[in-house]
Amino acid sequence: MSFTIQQALIPVENGYTTADVQIVGERLVAIAPKLEIIGTVVSGENKLLLPGFVNAHTHSSEIWQRGALRPFPLELWLAELYEFPPLQPEQIYLSALVTATETLLSGGTSIVDHLVLIPGKEIESITQAIRAYKEIGIRVFMAPLIYDELLDAGLPSGNIRVENSARELPTAETLALILEAVNKFHNPQECVSVLVAPTGIQLCSDKLFEGCIELSDRYNLCRHSHLLETKAQQLIAQEKYGCSAVEHLKNIGYLSQRTSLAHCVWLSERDINILAETGATVVHNPLSNLRLGSGIAPIIKYLKAGVNVSFACDGASSNDSQDLLEAIKIGSLLHNVTTFDYRDWISPRQAVEMASLGGAKGLNLENEIGSLTVGKKADIVLYDLTNLSLLPRTDPIGLLVRGRPTNVVDSVWVNGERIVADGKPTRINIDELRRELWERSQVTGERPISNAVRELEAHYRRVMGLNV
Amino acid sequence: MSFTIQQALIPVENGYTTADVQIVGERLVAIAPKLEIIGTVVSGENKLLLPGFVNAHTHSSEIWQRGALRPFPLELWLAELYEFPPLQPEQIYLSALVTATETLLSGGTSIVDHLVLIPGKEIESITQAIRAYKEIGIRVFMAPLIYDELLDAGLPSGNIRVENSARELPTAETLALILEAVNKFHNPQECVSVLVAPTGIQLCSDKLFEGCIELSDRYNLCRHSHLLETKAQQLIAQEKYGCSAVEHLKNIGYLSQRTSLAHCVWLSERDINILAETGATVVHNPLSNLRLGSGIAPIIKYLKAGVNVSFACDGASSNDSQDLLEAIKIGSLLHNVTTFDYRDWISPRQAVEMASLGGAKGLNLENEIGSLTVGKKADIVLYDLTNLSLLPRTDPIGLLVRGRPTNVVDSVWVNGERIVADGKPTRINIDELRRELWERSQVTGERPISNAVRELEAHYRRVMGLNV
Repeated sequence: MSFTIQQALIPVENGYTTADVQIVGERLVAIAPKLEIIGTVVSGENKLLLPGFVNAHTHSSEIWQRGALRPFPLELWLAELYEFPPLQPEQIYLSALVTATETLLSGGTSIVDHLVLIPGKEIESITQAIRAYKEIGIRVFMAPLIYDELLDAGLPSGNIRVENSARELPTAETLALILEAVNKFHNPQECVSVLVAPTGIQLCSDKLFEGCIELSDRYNLCRHSHLLETKAQQLIAQEKYGCSAVEHLKNIGYLSQRTSLAHCVWLSERDINILAETGATVVHNPLSNLRLGSGIAPIIKYLKAGVNVSFACDGASSNDSQDLLEAIKIGSLLHNVTTFDYRDWISPRQAVEMASLGGAKGLNLENEIGSLTVGKKADIVLYDLTNLSLLPRTDPIGLLVRGRPTNVVDSVWVNGERIVADGKPTRINIDELRRELWERSQVTGERPISNAVRELEAHYRRVMGLNV
Repeated sequence: MSFTIQQALIPVENGYTTADVQIVGERLVAIAPKLEIIGTVVSGENKLLLPGFVNAHTHSSEIWQRGALRPFPLELWLAELYEFPPLQPEQIYLSALVTATETLLSGGTSIVDHLVLIPGKEIESITQAIRAYKEIGIRVFMAPLIYDELLDAGLPSGNIRVENSARELPTAETLALILEAVNKFHNPQECVSVLVAPTGIQLCSDKLFEGCIELSDRYNLCRHSHLLETKAQQLIAQEKYGCSAVEHLKNIGYLSQRTSLAHCVWLSERDINILAETGATVVHNPLSNLRLGSGIAPIIKYLKAGVNVSFACDGASSNDSQDLLEAIKIGSLLHNVTTFDYRDWISPRQAVEMASLGGAKGLNLENEIGSLTVGKKADIVLYDLTNLSLLPRTDPIGLLVRGRPTNVVDSVWVNGERIVADGKPTRINIDELRRELWERSQVTGERPISNAVRELEAHYRRVMGLNV
């Protein structure tokens, strides 16, 4: 399949130009003011062409609880989340479709799904999510969420024993599961990659991390974890290792140019330097960090230290959306209140680069995707500049990033295939998806506080220094 | 005109119920599980009915520069804004239409337009904006932005004389202008109110504030100003009055239950108590405060002190949108990072009440609008719960406030008149509006830094303690 996008607006240094873009197979083969037509013609008139963004950290199945969870910090929020009955595999498929749809319609072409697995149906969970992503056509980085410690390890002990044990999966069995997923699904050429994704230091043994490193090295897999999302996790690291979580992960060899780390809110200057040295990527989830009161990640410090930063939505129960443009807007503006020196503030163009090339770097694919560069794969997005939310015409990237663009994505191509046209995914039926979601849900009032929270709350408040 | 909304979902304590709602003329006359049909029938099935929100502070004409302004703090950002050539009256009309459209389609039924006036065409500016608001049908609070001091007073002097004089309007002439606007346009019964709106202490003399108080008392007008948006303004107040801006405004009698104050970022505990005592309203503009790096307004402290708080978008060049749902989402989540105690965090229902009843209170209209109450005016909004962004069904208000609802407003009534139906304003042609905006604008790259900023920047950096 070949096609030529004619006369689209594309960014050049300090401005814009109008260009033709030729795509042959899965790659961009030429970008120039005027090119001969190859294959189908796509009009780029009154449209802006940008590289696709990466939704670099999400948990797709949280779609089912979005809107429902109370204003709680992560640790209590998680306890609430675990009180919902486990999902069925078909639901995993549907929520992956919603996550992909919202990502595509906000400029994303890649998704890192840190997928929560249904206990006892782990491989089926992965199968269903990948089925959805292949169907809709988005590039997927499947990161099955694993851990091998008791859930109550997710709170600092404060030297007090808490009884809230939950399931424990043996380390070896967990690693075997990932190996199976790699053998079954890992196929970057077909837009499906598997990542090793131990959830984080709060629930994972060193043995699990080490097994993941081994798999990552053997199969050239990227590594993905949560890191220091909350102050509680900072306390846990000190209790567990006697050093910072970042120092520990460096010591065991987990940090690398293939490692991306979600959140990174509670890092010291020294930790930041370690990230810079090891080439690890920070995945910024601004909405989730606000929603859960985790804090403001020191993104400007990361950028100044030379750490690669990308953006993500996080799961839809802590956001409660999968709109990447919103994450990019808030993820860039939020940091203006952390320093008066506006010369360090993130500009719209910088934000676009973080969301595209930064996302690609975090997945070790900076030579393949993330920019409008001849030779790279055609993961590209065409925005309709005649939409009211992008008018009047001023600086299209400025308004795309800082405004609230609505229905502005006209077309999306992933790996050279058009998977959104005229603002709609081409391969799935949105109305049918809506019907499925409607039928499988019901309106509820505010849920009563869960038993899990009742059990944990006093302890949480004590260790976090809140009035009990 | 009478009509009956049948079987809409409405919030009740801790949950939802389905109800019929009768509207006769401009008012809600009955709300009950089952009512007889009066007038036209409107189906409320699969829809949520809420009171309309108030976009409690904006500057409509900034639509023309949205997307265009650099990442600058307020004082330099304003200098950039003033470098754009003055608008034509017809542009004021068009940008008011856009502002109203985006407000309506994000749940707003009232708008406070702190309108920047074209020099020499002040009354015409007001006329054009009001023409737009009457045409589209939104309830408008016209707050012509006035000041009577030199623009260079907008920066702390730091004991250094700066030369950047701009126009000066004599105080008496300015007040005469407002009186003319009141005589011409003030007509609350027809949904048009005029406010006295001295821009703020940084550019207004006491004589101007006193003249506004006099007009406000004489004609029962609300009062509206910016207050302590930036740290620079806090410094100006100390230089100018030797006390805080809030203390000074209290001393001259400007604060009252009819006074609403945009921003309120840099207030002391003592200032907060003064707002509580006087009954003044804080208008929170979270996006603008982030965009301009002004800081995080201490909203949780205001709520704890009993200060009324409402939400707004601010002008579209410092946001760069007019989406109230976005302002409500960020304006409620943002404060979770200011205190670890999640029991003080703003819940979605609380946010809805702040946006509706809080907005009404700030305009001295809490007995007339702001809630689904029999006897109040029908300023109401019907949301489509079958939209993908509001699915699956969980807690509709939770998802409306915390998600990223897109195209969810089905219908809007203001003063009992339906001005949005099937997601579109009924009285204006959006396609024509888009065409007008397109034709009157052009794509620009990043503008060169303006002369005004070049002149001011070194001084600004010096007084703000930044490296020069």
